[in-house]
Amino acid sequence: MSQSTIVIKLGGGEGVNPEPLLQELPELLARGHRLVLVHGASAVANALADQAGLDRRQIQSPSGHLSRYTYPAMLEIFVAAAAGQMNKTLVAHLQARGVNAAGISGVDGRLLVAERKRAIRAVENGRQRVIRDDYSGKLRASHPQVLHALLDARFLPVVAPVALGTEGERLNVDGDRAAAFIAGALGAHALVILSNVPGLLADFPDPDSLMRQVTPQTLAKARAAAQGRMKRKVLAAEEALAAGVSQVILADARVANPVATALRGAGTVFRHH
Amino acid sequence: MSQSTIVIKLGGGEGVNPEPLLQELPELLARGHRLVLVHGASAVANALADQAGLDRRQIQSPSGHLSRYTYPAMLEIFVAAAAGQMNKTLVAHLQARGVNAAGISGVDGRLLVAERKRAIRAVENGRQRVIRDDYSGKLRASHPQVLHALLDARFLPVVAPVALGTEGERLNVDGDRAAAFIAGALGAHALVILSNVPGLLADFPDPDSLMRQVTPQTLAKARAAAQGRMKRKVLAAEEALAAGVSQVILADARVANPVATALRGAGTVFRHH
Repeated sequence: MSQSTIVIKLGGGEGVNPEPLLQELPELLARGHRLVLVHGASAVANALADQAGLDRRQIQSPSGHLSRYTYPAMLEIFVAAAAGQMNKTLVAHLQARGVNAAGISGVDGRLLVAERKRAIRAVENGRQRVIRDDYSGKLRASHPQVLHALLDARFLPVVAPVALGTEGERLNVDGDRAAAFIAGALGAHALVILSNVPGLLADFPDPDSLMRQVTPQTLAKARAAAQGRMKRKVLAAEEALAAGVSQVILADARVANPVATALRGAGTVFRHH
Repeated sequence: MSQSTIVIKLGGGEGVNPEPLLQELPELLARGHRLVLVHGASAVANALADQAGLDRRQIQSPSGHLSRYTYPAMLEIFVAAAAGQMNKTLVAHLQARGVNAAGISGVDGRLLVAERKRAIRAVENGRQRVIRDDYSGKLRASHPQVLHALLDARFLPVVAPVALGTEGERLNVDGDRAAAFIAGALGAHALVILSNVPGLLADFPDPDSLMRQVTPQTLAKARAAAQGRMKRKVLAAEEALAAGVSQVILADARVANPVATALRGAGTVFRHH
């Protein structure tokens, strides 16, 4: 598998420890893989929003999905936390381990282009209303040239989940789906999505119910089993496969060598057949 | 002057309007210049620090220089504001104008390596004390490979003034001196330092006393004339010339086509002879 392109998504949720991945990356790079690291930022963004005294209300969709209400002041905090704090912390930690990382966001080089959700239906206190000042986006395109420039020059690109809006805005986008878009644009061999779960559980929260493989035949079952944040990860996996990625693995960030472990088949592997 | 490398520093102080420069950049790029934009972040960092309720004490050196006291919580805010908010705002504005900008910081690709100031002598209420928890750095080296990778692929690099410490820390560094280091590492034809002043005034604040040229013969006079923030700009100019940059121009960010205007000799031009 030398020279294969692997996109790694590191969850940004509360309690996700980047250490096992950071320790593994020098070894993975030494094997010749072309790697791109995409990270989340929710815990860091929550902390900065609290420090700045912002209201962290969530938007609940009519179908029950929860997402960050990214009003203009929250967007500033999200960009600061994701593209500033989290991105540069990861890059500095990697540099300290001898990995020549370079951090960007989806705004840079138009890596991630999204369309702002101009009118979001939300349920609040049992009533529906329309939110018009949210700055989150629906991903539309990925221009991977900036990643190729960095990869060809032997840098490890580290990407924050901020997208460029079609009118030049900066937009909050979901990190898992951003990673899926990037993996598709790069024609990646694998997308490995790491967080504090062993994978997708058929019978949440029973740890013995881990689904090892999801193929088109079992996708409906996977969709139905996904709870909470897992819903978006399953969607990201579907999007990456549809964009031509060979396999998507939802796996555990907490184990030693999390990427190699995932590639050996731990976690939940989504395949074309 | 086609294909010449020009490093542009845009001041981040209160009231510096980036618009004239942002309007000029497409035209400068169309002429074939290799451009790098380095930006400051003080006003944005001050605003975020206030929002986060941080104490914005300054450090006064025994010789009277003032600098940001970058204690750990302030470093987080500085990185968030500089590498997150300011950097991505500039990149998004440039993208909206059709310029394929890509934003990084000095941490990325080890572009700017600095040494943390572990013990800073400060004067407070007339007494000297030593500050040991400051995360600002003295620039030691610039590795320009990440800029070459982006420039060769036709991106406009936009650089935030955060450096990588020798122990893997992120450090606050002065934007003017960061630009001087980068200009030196690139062997730039010119470093243009733009802010809300017409240049260096021999008799501050008399606008008719603008020094048009500074050569080794008149450097002592320039040093003596520099007030406040201008002291660092003169130091940056000296460092850039010593590193081999052909000319450094301190010029006005507020005029139309500020870079072309500066290159035509407006502002204060520092030369080798």
